[in-house]
Amino acid sequence: MKTDFHFSKEIERAFKNDPPGQWMSPMPAGCLRLSSGYPAPSLVPSEEIKQAVARLLDEERDLPLHYIGSPRVPQLKEFLQNRMAQRDVETANDELLVTSGACQAIDLIARILLDDKAVVAVESPTYMEALEIFQNYTEHYITIPIDENGLQTEVLAEMLAERKDKGLPIPRLLYTIPTYQNPTGTTLSLARRQHVMELAEQYDFLVLEDDAYGELGFGERPRLLKAMDTQNRVIYVGSLSKVVAPGMRIGWVVADKRLIAPLSWFKKDLDHPFDQATMASFLEATDFDEHLEKLTTVYESKCATMLSALEEFLPPSVSWFVPKGGYFVWVQIPDVDTSKMLQEAFAAGVAFVPGKYFFLNQQEGLQYLRLSFSYASHEEIVKGVELLGRVVGTHIVSTAKNVE
Amino acid sequence: MKTDFHFSKEIERAFKNDPPGQWMSPMPAGCLRLSSGYPAPSLVPSEEIKQAVARLLDEERDLPLHYIGSPRVPQLKEFLQNRMAQRDVETANDELLVTSGACQAIDLIARILLDDKAVVAVESPTYMEALEIFQNYTEHYITIPIDENGLQTEVLAEMLAERKDKGLPIPRLLYTIPTYQNPTGTTLSLARRQHVMELAEQYDFLVLEDDAYGELGFGERPRLLKAMDTQNRVIYVGSLSKVVAPGMRIGWVVADKRLIAPLSWFKKDLDHPFDQATMASFLEATDFDEHLEKLTTVYESKCATMLSALEEFLPPSVSWFVPKGGYFVWVQIPDVDTSKMLQEAFAAGVAFVPGKYFFLNQQEGLQYLRLSFSYASHEEIVKGVELLGRVVGTHIVSTAKNVE
Repeated sequence: MKTDFHFSKEIERAFKNDPPGQWMSPMPAGCLRLSSGYPAPSLVPSEEIKQAVARLLDEERDLPLHYIGSPRVPQLKEFLQNRMAQRDVETANDELLVTSGACQAIDLIARILLDDKAVVAVESPTYMEALEIFQNYTEHYITIPIDENGLQTEVLAEMLAERKDKGLPIPRLLYTIPTYQNPTGTTLSLARRQHVMELAEQYDFLVLEDDAYGELGFGERPRLLKAMDTQNRVIYVGSLSKVVAPGMRIGWVVADKRLIAPLSWFKKDLDHPFDQATMASFLEATDFDEHLEKLTTVYESKCATMLSALEEFLPPSVSWFVPKGGYFVWVQIPDVDTSKMLQEAFAAGVAFVPGKYFFLNQQEGLQYLRLSFSYASHEEIVKGVELLGRVVGTHIVSTAKNVE
Repeated sequence: MKTDFHFSKEIERAFKNDPPGQWMSPMPAGCLRLSSGYPAPSLVPSEEIKQAVARLLDEERDLPLHYIGSPRVPQLKEFLQNRMAQRDVETANDELLVTSGACQAIDLIARILLDDKAVVAVESPTYMEALEIFQNYTEHYITIPIDENGLQTEVLAEMLAERKDKGLPIPRLLYTIPTYQNPTGTTLSLARRQHVMELAEQYDFLVLEDDAYGELGFGERPRLLKAMDTQNRVIYVGSLSKVVAPGMRIGWVVADKRLIAPLSWFKKDLDHPFDQATMASFLEATDFDEHLEKLTTVYESKCATMLSALEEFLPPSVSWFVPKGGYFVWVQIPDVDTSKMLQEAFAAGVAFVPGKYFFLNQQEGLQYLRLSFSYASHEEIVKGVELLGRVVGTHIVSTAKNVE
């Protein structure tokens, strides 16, 4: 072809970034999968979903296979409204939009709110796919460090005050995963949750609360930011990916109806009636609280296995946060570039995600890695951490004391 | 909330349009559905899809319910490559992207190619949801009228020559549905297909060939623009919505790999492994040519029923194009604003889509309406057209001769 393509201005900007998915190294077959945020195979209800589809299609025939028409699509919405009510968030019909997973929700939110002038505040580290999405829209960020109690709101407050003093633009949006965060597994304390809401009011920004892991607490689940949101500043994003099945792609947004309307505007053509009706059919035959109880019991136990194995097999200079829920353990290995360990780990037979991919400035993440206890079995977790320990051992040159 | 929302610049432009879906009037229950482009209930393979899911989940268990991992996802892609090969289009792996229906494909294409400077050439009338999508990106259009042989390429040639003479920007993209067009049911002649390709080369624009109905020909199917595309100027969009089930949301794009890469960039997070694997499971148990033969036999017969009923029940001044495939009959009722007939038609018990919604300048479409013969049964088609005839009769004030 003689011509060059004329891409849109927005796309030309996106192309300056690395292509998405660079963090997904092709993993050799047979590698122990401590990398992926996948649910445990035994906890994915494939038999129940098979039955849900059979029931759905026996009862409704062609209805869920058209663009619209299945009565179970509104039922799914009702289920989600009931879940939100259990978490102290009352949600009207025009305040909730079902999406194709949390990623589509985040992309739609970015699409309507962000442009090349917008500043976004993100946790550091944070969910890499959210970073990839935001970077398609803007180059302007402030990054707020995380400690064992989540997002350091004192630092956010200082940054905001400084920006105000200097006349710099205030972020339009704060993106946070306050509960069982990806990748750190940390949970924002109640005091900091209150502080976030105060700052949002004081500086007039919106908060995107990504709650993909929020139902997977090992103990009491913390209060949602959305439940503390008296001014409709919080855009809540939920997902059934981690608690039912990612392949069904069911997420949702709860927000001010003045935001849901434009989100629907761009969502409209991308609805998935069959997936939504299938999920509704699955849910109507499931005691969801019992289902969650089963999941969290398994994940808490697998998490304990991983933490014990880390104690046993990792050198004393290595440290980690102890998660209260979710899928992940965030590991710090001082003075080691974990991305340079990855091929060796693959060769040894274990996979992890190098920490740098979770940082806007990847240099800040060199000494971290993310482990997931969700997918692998207890035996695989122990074996995988043992293999990882050997690889780490060969990389640690200086001995430092355990800072946990 | 005290604050107003800060929407992105692009979104603020989109908000100047009417909200999408305005053409979908809420239809009273029990109305005969000659409006919607839905497949016939009896032709939606709900029993086969139930079995496809059972086979898929029995064999693969959790695999198709994760983000990635089902071997049937690549199988779906192979199936689509084979279909394209049957239509004389050889497609490498990096030249094909599976999407969530044709609408997502069109939206992704608009997203990467169009900005507020771009000019798009569209048929007049054309698919309203494509217009809604394009209008989210740009306000600049040229519209090319359609006759019984499709897009009037002579008019397009004149417009392009005039724009070149005047130094006006040439369209970046021509959007066309060359085969069994929505809404007119017309098919672009072979001579005009060649003319489109010559103009694309001469004026250096891309062609978006929307082939959603292309497999539903009552006789020989015309040669694809993509099969005549020696310079990789054609972006082909296909869909299984009209030939299997819209609710599964399976579409695809075939294009130059330099376009597929950025489309994937924005598509990536919106993949639907369960739907794709289910579709692959359905297809592997289906003789697809036989399946298509069954569909086209039924639709050809329903189309004939509709055309006979139109002859019988509509006044002589009313005319229509005779379709060679697809779902639709485009009806012209001189000197009547069909949108003003809609509520009466609903009250009488029949639904249609007013023609104006298929035009950028809706005033040009007042005297048209779109009927669909796909969803309703033979009996419902006859009854619906009879009811429509009565409503039309009360609206025709002057008698004009049948111009068919």
